[in-house]
Amino acid sequence: MLHRVRSAVAHLVSSGGPPGSGSNELPTPASPDPIAHPEAPRSPPAGAESGTRASGDAVENRGSFSRPTFLQLSPRGLRRAEDHAGRVVQSPPDTGRRLPWRTGYAEVINAGKSRHNEDQACCEVVYVEGRQARMGGPGKSINDQGNQGLYFHYWGLFDGHAGGGAAEMASRLLHRHIREQLRGLVEILQDPSPPPICLPSSTEASVSLEPSCPGGSQPCWPLQNEVTHESLVVGAIENAFRFMDEHMARKQRNQYAVGGCCALVTVYLLGKMYVANAGDSRAIIVRNGDIIPMSREFTPETERQRLQLLGFLKPELLGNEFTHLEFPRRVQPKELGRRMLYRDQSMTGWAYKKIELQDLRFPLVCGEGKKARVMATIGVTRGLGDHNLKVSSSTLPVKPFLSCFPEVQVYDLTQYEHCPDDVLILGTDGLWDVSSDKDVAATVDKVLSSYEPNDPSRYTSLAQALVLGARGISREQGWRLPNNKMGSGDDISVFVIPLGGADSYT
Amino acid sequence: MLHRVRSAVAHLVSSGGPPGSGSNELPTPASPDPIAHPEAPRSPPAGAESGTRASGDAVENRGSFSRPTFLQLSPRGLRRAEDHAGRVVQSPPDTGRRLPWRTGYAEVINAGKSRHNEDQACCEVVYVEGRQARMGGPGKSINDQGNQGLYFHYWGLFDGHAGGGAAEMASRLLHRHIREQLRGLVEILQDPSPPPICLPSSTEASVSLEPSCPGGSQPCWPLQNEVTHESLVVGAIENAFRFMDEHMARKQRNQYAVGGCCALVTVYLLGKMYVANAGDSRAIIVRNGDIIPMSREFTPETERQRLQLLGFLKPELLGNEFTHLEFPRRVQPKELGRRMLYRDQSMTGWAYKKIELQDLRFPLVCGEGKKARVMATIGVTRGLGDHNLKVSSSTLPVKPFLSCFPEVQVYDLTQYEHCPDDVLILGTDGLWDVSSDKDVAATVDKVLSSYEPNDPSRYTSLAQALVLGARGISREQGWRLPNNKMGSGDDISVFVIPLGGADSYT
Repeated sequence: MLHRVRSAVAHLVSSGGPPGSGSNELPTPASPDPIAHPEAPRSPPAGAESGTRASGDAVENRGSFSRPTFLQLSPRGLRRAEDHAGRVVQSPPDTGRRLPWRTGYAEVINAGKSRHNEDQACCEVVYVEGRQARMGGPGKSINDQGNQGLYFHYWGLFDGHAGGGAAEMASRLLHRHIREQLRGLVEILQDPSPPPICLPSSTEASVSLEPSCPGGSQPCWPLQNEVTHESLVVGAIENAFRFMDEHMARKQRNQYAVGGCCALVTVYLLGKMYVANAGDSRAIIVRNGDIIPMSREFTPETERQRLQLLGFLKPELLGNEFTHLEFPRRVQPKELGRRMLYRDQSMTGWAYKKIELQDLRFPLVCGEGKKARVMATIGVTRGLGDHNLKVSSSTLPVKPFLSCFPEVQVYDLTQYEHCPDDVLILGTDGLWDVSSDKDVAATVDKVLSSYEPNDPSRYTSLAQALVLGARGISREQGWRLPNNKMGSGDDISVFVIPLGGADSYT
Repeated sequence: MLHRVRSAVAHLVSSGGPPGSGSNELPTPASPDPIAHPEAPRSPPAGAESGTRASGDAVENRGSFSRPTFLQLSPRGLRRAEDHAGRVVQSPPDTGRRLPWRTGYAEVINAGKSRHNEDQACCEVVYVEGRQARMGGPGKSINDQGNQGLYFHYWGLFDGHAGGGAAEMASRLLHRHIREQLRGLVEILQDPSPPPICLPSSTEASVSLEPSCPGGSQPCWPLQNEVTHESLVVGAIENAFRFMDEHMARKQRNQYAVGGCCALVTVYLLGKMYVANAGDSRAIIVRNGDIIPMSREFTPETERQRLQLLGFLKPELLGNEFTHLEFPRRVQPKELGRRMLYRDQSMTGWAYKKIELQDLRFPLVCGEGKKARVMATIGVTRGLGDHNLKVSSSTLPVKPFLSCFPEVQVYDLTQYEHCPDDVLILGTDGLWDVSSDKDVAATVDKVLSSYEPNDPSRYTSLAQALVLGARGISREQGWRLPNNKMGSGDDISVFVIPLGGADSYT
């Protein structure tokens, strides 16, 4: 059966560059350069066959496209990856060095919805040098433990909209912002005692981690439980998203890049997986056949009350064009005085209200499911970028209603003995629009059980199977899935991260 | 064992008025009077032994107290119920008519924390007359089905603070506000077709339930799934809380009543239990030994991000006295320039920030657990009342940060065959501060298994056992619990609602 599956999909799947090529270009620990320094190499833009590497900004300006470095695409492979008709599934080559942890990856371009594949991906091992080590000069240890730095593993999926610029920028830089946020925590995270509440300022002579912060006579409410090492990493990731978004704001002010992107990121650090999600991508763990959700989607439906509250508290953001109330459909002028179903920011249920003049404004949040929109414009409510996004035929900015903050869920890898079939799946909405969690878990079981546990290609094959399954079989069949559902015409990107690989494959 | 338990607790438990007394005063379907009409009778205030019934406002003005009507307390019983030393557990008398569904109830006054028992309770069967029936005159059916009205069952616990006025008022009136909100829905809820999106105005001649609401040429986004009969009941309860709170605001503007209360309410209507919670009371279902949480607590800890967001968006509400940032302890002036742990409205993790001048303000949210406070003033963040509440030694109002909206959870009684030991427990925080869900489930099992399924007193005995257990054994023992935890010195009130009783005891 396995052989048949493999043969049947072979012509639909490309494994990146020519066999053996580029084996030295796979992700290596990122350099400790500040974020502003020259950026990580990408597969070259399609127009750059001469081999000169365009800078990120130049790429954005020319509106050309690139694919993740680890795909090791040749210029010809890049053109194939952007072929909307063939929709060949792309994966890293199955020769040479593999992605860390034997991570599987596959992607496919959309069926013509946008010119380029607006998804981007990044997989890196990142070294974080501590501030104290830096203060002491290269190689010089200052603290007693001699701790100098930390590595974290990083996987990121970025689902772009209104252009690929934001996703491309986030895939190059977000992990560097995370590194920057972690830099001040390197010594603290390696010290088993609780994090100090107060640190000396950088200008103070003392570099002690436990400065005296006298309580004085004022009331104190020391927190007993909450400030953990884990919560510091969560805070670092949250702030990294904010700085990444501000970084984009500076770029977008100069019109260098437009659009925005959802971001789904996993950081593995000191035994724990931190899954951070801002948007409508999704992460699940499939463990011993069970499904453990690791993210929630942020859409106009799921964030309705947050959006309505903001519109209610800051009506100026609605610009006399929108009402913060939700109605099941557009109110007609002739319905003034009648009673219609509505919900406000505090309600989960519905009630009737008498229609007044201001109710004729367009609702801030409208629609259901994939058709739900904020300000009739955008269907996701968290992510990076979108600083220039305006309501259609209006100057009203949408950005104030969007949040760049992820929700971070933590999974402690040390609490469970994982087998080789336990995986964390990250997928953009192209996967989840047509595949349920159960569908995905069934594919995990089917594909992994047909490979030896040590077969190095099993996770990439699984990623390919997931993408192929969501894409549907062929254009001639209307991308229809075996269960007669339509396939996704969207960009689809999937990481498969084996949880049993943490120790063996770092 | 049962006998021993019964004997041992007999002197600690009072079953209300003298045997057989007041059997005609038990809850009956509330009259259809508007909310403004004379209010339901209460057990008389302690000072009113002559038997004259003081109006609610007068009671509040005199600062006297009352207990729930269904306790049928005589003036002497009322004095005993307010005895902080004895802390006798009160229950309805075990003779005469019982509470609907054989509901069990027990309460005990605090150990001296406040002069009166600031908890209140209400248990009613409420008749809702439809608007159309009213339009057609008494007894006259207008619609084809001949539906004229609906009954709902209602249980409410109100945990007062800063005085008993708000809890007392809510216990008298909230179910009437719910009735008012349901009145316009009587025909719709009895019609199996989906609720109409638009209704005629009351001045329009047509009383059709399905008026034509032409879509016209404007964009429509008809909601397919969300507007259900259930969601209308949820919306009605949510709005009833809002109207109740506005009602209190009008009273409190005239200084008639001060203080506020948490409200935990259950409505049984058309086969479903709606559990609405605003505050830190708690509801759980114990079903076949399993625990099903039916509410969440709303405290400065659980609502931190909502509170901080409001302070961030409306800094004028912080009055230059508070910062919306959270710190693990009060920042000292000498720490200016140092880096301290903080969280803002978007973060669940912690990070370090450089202390600036405005960080020396008091944090909007501080403390942990039972010591957590908003504006250093109040430990619950949802409830009714508190319209006059100011920050200590300041004129800054706290109310803008408090929400009167409940979270409503729905339990469909028809989806499961309930046995006589399946119960819904409602308790004020006096119960849950010292008893875990598991402790309560164990008591449910222990007590109910020692009574025959048809013994009419089993649910009251269970309520008594829960209150006695939480109260601790005696003052001499420092109200210590058997497991050596301290008992609760707070007011404690508990309803035990048998889920198997829905059909048999309506």
